Amino acid sequence: MTIQNAINKLENILGDRLSTRFSIRQQHGTNETYFPEILPDAVAFVNSTEEVSNIAFICNEEECPIVAWGTGTSLEGNALAHRGGISINMMNMNKILKVNPEDMDVIVQPGVTREELNSFIKDKGLFFPVDPGANASLGGMAATRASGTTAVRYGTMRENVLGLEVVLANGNIFKTGGRSKKSAAGYDLTKLIVGSEGTLGLITQLTLKLQGIPESISAAICSFPTVNDAVQTVIQTIQMGIPIARMELVDSQTIMACNEYFKENMLVSPHLFLEFHGSENSVKEQSETVSEIATNFSGSNFEWSSKPEQRNKLWKNRHNAFYAVKAKFPGHKAIATDACVPISELANLIDQTAKDIYESGIPGPIWGHVGDGNFHATLLIKEGDLKEKKIAQAIIHRMCERSLELGGTVTGEHGIGMGKLNFMEKEHGYAWDIMTTIKKTLDPNSILNPGKVIRSN
Amino acid sequence: MTIQNAINKLENILGDRLSTRFSIRQQHGTNETYFPEILPDAVAFVNSTEEVSNIAFICNEEECPIVAWGTGTSLEGNALAHRGGISINMMNMNKILKVNPEDMDVIVQPGVTREELNSFIKDKGLFFPVDPGANASLGGMAATRASGTTAVRYGTMRENVLGLEVVLANGNIFKTGGRSKKSAAGYDLTKLIVGSEGTLGLITQLTLKLQGIPESISAAICSFPTVNDAVQTVIQTIQMGIPIARMELVDSQTIMACNEYFKENMLVSPHLFLEFHGSENSVKEQSETVSEIATNFSGSNFEWSSKPEQRNKLWKNRHNAFYAVKAKFPGHKAIATDACVPISELANLIDQTAKDIYESGIPGPIWGHVGDGNFHATLLIKEGDLKEKKIAQAIIHRMCERSLELGGTVTGEHGIGMGKLNFMEKEHGYAWDIMTTIKKTLDPNSILNPGKVIRSN
Repeated sequence: MTIQNAINKLENILGDRLSTRFSIRQQHGTNETYFPEILPDAVAFVNSTEEVSNIAFICNEEECPIVAWGTGTSLEGNALAHRGGISINMMNMNKILKVNPEDMDVIVQPGVTREELNSFIKDKGLFFPVDPGANASLGGMAATRASGTTAVRYGTMRENVLGLEVVLANGNIFKTGGRSKKSAAGYDLTKLIVGSEGTLGLITQLTLKLQGIPESISAAICSFPTVNDAVQTVIQTIQMGIPIARMELVDSQTIMACNEYFKENMLVSPHLFLEFHGSENSVKEQSETVSEIATNFSGSNFEWSSKPEQRNKLWKNRHNAFYAVKAKFPGHKAIATDACVPISELANLIDQTAKDIYESGIPGPIWGHVGDGNFHATLLIKEGDLKEKKIAQAIIHRMCERSLELGGTVTGEHGIGMGKLNFMEKEHGYAWDIMTTIKKTLDPNSILNPGKVIRSN
Repeated sequence: MTIQNAINKLENILGDRLSTRFSIRQQHGTNETYFPEILPDAVAFVNSTEEVSNIAFICNEEECPIVAWGTGTSLEGNALAHRGGISINMMNMNKILKVNPEDMDVIVQPGVTREELNSFIKDKGLFFPVDPGANASLGGMAATRASGTTAVRYGTMRENVLGLEVVLANGNIFKTGGRSKKSAAGYDLTKLIVGSEGTLGLITQLTLKLQGIPESISAAICSFPTVNDAVQTVIQTIQMGIPIARMELVDSQTIMACNEYFKENMLVSPHLFLEFHGSENSVKEQSETVSEIATNFSGSNFEWSSKPEQRNKLWKNRHNAFYAVKAKFPGHKAIATDACVPISELANLIDQTAKDIYESGIPGPIWGHVGDGNFHATLLIKEGDLKEKKIAQAIIHRMCERSLELGGTVTGEHGIGMGKLNFMEKEHGYAWDIMTTIKKTLDPNSILNPGKVIRSN
């Protein structure tokens, strides 16, 4: 029962699609945040559910860890082979199997990225709304319960996955959910797997809900004297039931970085980036109402656009904020943070976090999906500077503590991975034991992404 | 280890709130469909989570079944004490613990009914949208993953429960979810418990999402030459992304019954009952677009109303269809059926079902939440007529088989209970084993609502 035995057996079935080359392992050992490089012992490039099932069967016998790999864009080390073993690269399982335009759903393999899906279905007048920023794989997005800029209107992966095909630790394959819009037939295993970060099973197929491309889309940006004014605008918009499609906060520091990066000239103050979807009249009405609300909270410098190119130009700063910020701090590592609270506590949490970051001396621009009560501070620490890394970790720690005190969660959308494991006990109490019990029942040898999400043994 | 031991111990802690009187047991042994009366051995009237926890602890030791009881309005025998034991009446746990108007959420005990909640929060401009028809308890609604007329716009209990407090089989208490709108922190236990019909735990507290009462509400009814025309109208409305709040089909048989019961004079043909929520302009626009679509599918005899009393009058027939139908067939038992398919298959399934019912000779008016692909045929069989009961069961069987063949589910919203257990294997395959495994792990003595939802042992 060793990892090496598993590798030998897997070579027999995968041939040169099983690689132990250092460069390949290294590609599957990187992460977009501050964790050290962690290399799997081998990487399997799979083509089918049956291969994933065979790998699981063999690795279960050999007690060899397996973890799925998509685009590698997760932010909490979610896909790192923390205890070695096999990284299963799912990106060759990239077929769009069936689009059902009448029912507005689609069946895809996990390696399809959200942009690939959206290109494919565009001419059918449909789109898949979940947008975490990165062009992530849909399997990875489901595994981490991703969301992003449009969740305020269309929900997260939780609301947009109708069904799954899953490979269990022992290699057995099962299907969850289906194509009907609702069902009361037994336990909702789909929702159990979505967000389980590959610790309960490997996602090999997804049925996703689609949306009709709106008749009209309009975008706007607007500046505020304080973050609190911007957040109050968001709260009132939500309370009035305005079906706004995107509502993003960007703070002064980020605006400054964007101004430099894109040679823009935006007022250096907190901004809201807005997007409205609907019929022409409805979009017009939504826009008018929200700009009235914003004006009441001292919002100004409105810029509007309904043409695609102009809209993209307007949103460019938000979409590329991460790169603008990184460019402003060369030689720095960017650490994404993630907290989500009831919206009434959002201004308070952002305020305290901003103050904390300011006092630390580390740059930490803030932006977020404020319509959901969710935001991120991006902490920039000098590469290799262990002292700054510690300071950043302490900021994250306090941010999570505050989020929990305010009735929130330590992660709105990035997941637990390796980064938030220490907060599971505090956030969930005894419910974490229940999660651990379920994990142990479905994966008794703990081969599925061990060391993540649940209490480690 | 006996039920009698459990009763003796429970008397010590509950006093006269534990009853073994026949009339009380009988009240907790009835059902709204064709199942025989099944009496629990005793009924516990509980006042607190701690009492529920103590009951579970004792009953787990004594291997005595427990099942929660709310308003007794479930339709598949979901709350019947199938294997005897204790029926836990939750209706004294009826406090609305905290309304958070800014965050639009509320924390309630499970015995609060949806109408009680809506009366309480009305003057805060808020409402709880899930409406299964009956004035059910919110705990029961969560346990059966209920939905109803507004799910097309606001979702089912799955989308509207943010968090739960749950008592496990061994008496341990845990909390799931929370008040933030989204979270990626570990397994979604809230969604696992919602719809588990009391087989995994007993719900003792719920955090629910609320909605703002729309500025404007408008209702309409309209008749169609065929069910297919009505369904095509629904499909096109959904595809156009119109955020319609209610979209209910009522067939000719039901219209006939309503005409008799209410002395109405509606055209005897399939009808759609519609409701629009939004700003005044948006409601106007939605109404216009949908009436254009309906007209294209030969819809006529539109009646509109935006005033509350008129709206209620208009919807009265839909809301009371069940009673109208029952009145038309005195001495009959009404058996509710429930199927849900991808919307493109709905006309087909309704058509086949109607034909099947017609050929059986049993009356079976059809109505349903067609925006979700969900509908019910209400089969009317003579009280005590075993032959008719068999015919009805055979109709249900075929309806379920067809629903599965068309990619649907055997229950959109009534749950599995005792009525649909035989279809779990066919609908879920190996996933049913996973459900059973989870159940056995969390409730090893099988005391929680035994004989329901999962594979029976």
